Amino acid sequence: MIKFSVFYPNEEGSTFDMDYYVTKHIPLCRQLTGDAMRRAEIDKGLGGAAPGSKPPFVAAVHMYFDSLEAFQASFVPHRMMLADDVPNYTNIRPVLQMAEVL
Amino acid sequence: MIKFSVFYPNEEGSTFDMDYYVTKHIPLCRQLTGDAMRRAEIDKGLGGAAPGSKPPFVAAVHMYFDSLEAFQASFVPHRMMLADDVPNYTNIRPVLQMAEVL
Repeated sequence: MIKFSVFYPNEEGSTFDMDYYVTKHIPLCRQLTGDAMRRAEIDKGLGGAAPGSKPPFVAAVHMYFDSLEAFQASFVPHRMMLADDVPNYTNIRPVLQMAEVL
Repeated sequence: MIKFSVFYPNEEGSTFDMDYYVTKHIPLCRQLTGDAMRRAEIDKGLGGAAPGSKPPFVAAVHMYFDSLEAFQASFVPHRMMLADDVPNYTNIRPVLQMAEVL
């Protein structure tokens, strides 16, 4: 199983519309990728290492696929459409990571 | 459900012993927290946004708990013992995040 994660760093002056993200952007990801995306898990950052500290990431999503090939075939063709939607919910430049789930 | 994530940024000159992490450190986390930790998911970074680019994080773990209270009761008392084990597998200073799973 592989996981494509998108992290939104908690930067000074950043904005993030969690409602739009959960009800519009992630459903759009699901719709475009179809069954190839096995699961999507959305994180809402609560805090960091020290009690009361800000979370390093305001939000993140983790999208699971059976293989890199399944990701490339289902997600990559839509990446520009998805990138175009980002300004609708945040001004943060996301950090992207592909990982293998051990 | 809440998720305590530990990220290991992919820094120049960093080392990370994935075998030790998977077979020693995470099992120690499981043992110390007991049933309170519902699940632990380990990521091995494969790549970043651009094809062939390095992953932002060498590795990460996501530990799931029913509540912040369950985390605080089961994990926090052992955090120094767990922190003491970190130099056994990496020289990276980890980034910690507490998140709500939506």
